[in-house]
Amino acid sequence: MIIIKIGGNRNTNKQTIAREIAELDTPAIVVHGANEQRDDLAAQIGAPTKRITSPSGITSVQTDKQALDILIMAYAGLENTRWIQALQQAGCNAIGLTGADGGIWKGKRKKVLIHVEKNKKILIRDTYTGTVDASNTKLLELLITNGYTPVLTQPALSYDNELINTDNDLAIAAMTKTLPITKIVMLFGAPGFLKDPTDPTSIISHIAKHELPDMMQYAHGTMKKKIMGTIEALNNGVQTVYWGDSRREDSITHVLAGNGTTIS
Amino acid sequence: MIIIKIGGNRNTNKQTIAREIAELDTPAIVVHGANEQRDDLAAQIGAPTKRITSPSGITSVQTDKQALDILIMAYAGLENTRWIQALQQAGCNAIGLTGADGGIWKGKRKKVLIHVEKNKKILIRDTYTGTVDASNTKLLELLITNGYTPVLTQPALSYDNELINTDNDLAIAAMTKTLPITKIVMLFGAPGFLKDPTDPTSIISHIAKHELPDMMQYAHGTMKKKIMGTIEALNNGVQTVYWGDSRREDSITHVLAGNGTTIS
Repeated sequence: MIIIKIGGNRNTNKQTIAREIAELDTPAIVVHGANEQRDDLAAQIGAPTKRITSPSGITSVQTDKQALDILIMAYAGLENTRWIQALQQAGCNAIGLTGADGGIWKGKRKKVLIHVEKNKKILIRDTYTGTVDASNTKLLELLITNGYTPVLTQPALSYDNELINTDNDLAIAAMTKTLPITKIVMLFGAPGFLKDPTDPTSIISHIAKHELPDMMQYAHGTMKKKIMGTIEALNNGVQTVYWGDSRREDSITHVLAGNGTTIS
Repeated sequence: MIIIKIGGNRNTNKQTIAREIAELDTPAIVVHGANEQRDDLAAQIGAPTKRITSPSGITSVQTDKQALDILIMAYAGLENTRWIQALQQAGCNAIGLTGADGGIWKGKRKKVLIHVEKNKKILIRDTYTGTVDASNTKLLELLITNGYTPVLTQPALSYDNELINTDNDLAIAAMTKTLPITKIVMLFGAPGFLKDPTDPTSIISHIAKHELPDMMQYAHGTMKKKIMGTIEALNNGVQTVYWGDSRREDSITHVLAGNGTTIS
């Protein structure tokens, strides 16, 4: 079983990636993002996305009630349905789900976050955020056994049944605890892991598992969470994780052939 | 098996309706609308909903590419996910789906619509609209058998795998062709079927099946499609259809006790 994760880059080629997924010779779970579409919608509505930075330097979105509604519209609405359309068109019998459906992604809501700004710590309440640590993988297996391809995205469900903004990459890691996943493909708007994000030739083509923590020094933005998720997935028994470019016409084939960053 | 359909009225009480659904003694399929939320979002984005009127006097939404995106965000995104949250909170293991998922709702796309304005006929192309005439009810039965409650909404999928704006009430009728549905509850922003929509005391408490076509003369807006869907559902073997108010704290109990409009 393979997980295909596609980030929310605006230039992602849904039609060609959908065709590649339809032609895979192993059952797949698709997970997609929508961060750029969310930011576009937030700007259109006049409530632009606000970001917070944790004391350890990890940035995330400040998710109050309105930001959560915008997130749901972009992830569960616009992008999830558009992915289903592209996959059905490609002959893949896809089913769109959020982590809240059937409790597929569950985690604890963080009721207070610490935001660091100009060396000052600010407490943020009124936030709907959390990290997925459990997954109803039985539902996913039921769908796959019956010939359907689950297409998953945010939000997740807290243990108190609130919707929470979560990180897709860490939610994927939680699924590898109980699902027989051998490979994970993560596609985004870069050719792989770059030592210098402004220089595509600085790509690292192979990272050994034990080298991953050391890569945090080169990681910017959401790449830090990709590293954290990948470490956990490999610890849970996944053999290989592939990072590569979602903007190509042969994204999956290209990265599985070792042309992005391969981590094992 | 029962279908609970809840319209997109802003004053719908999701929490109490979710609790009533969780307590039903028969498996349920939930179908919800989001027309008012769609109109709100369309206004916020600065692309207000446009309506067209067919030669037979039935109004529908003009669904170009942008209107379809707005529809998806409101129906599949905001409202579907909020319903899942309310149902999970109430202890009902709900799964949110659109008609496109697994081809649950399929219909033919109408590539040209006729709009009548000031006695002139105008051809409307660039529209993503269609009527559902087939349903993948096997997927719904698979989920119900495994203890999940499907929560369905727009859009549907055309036979060419395009997303289409469809009427939820007519899609429900299509599901009754192959599912063993005995009762349908339709909740909306009125106490039942009113002879005069401005007068709540003009409610008709019982309509016999053969009297339904005659009710078209009193029907305004989307009520015409409710009548059409109800006629088809009764023809497909449904015993009773209940129309009532979604704004109460006991909406389902109230209407099942005969306090709305009962059609049989």
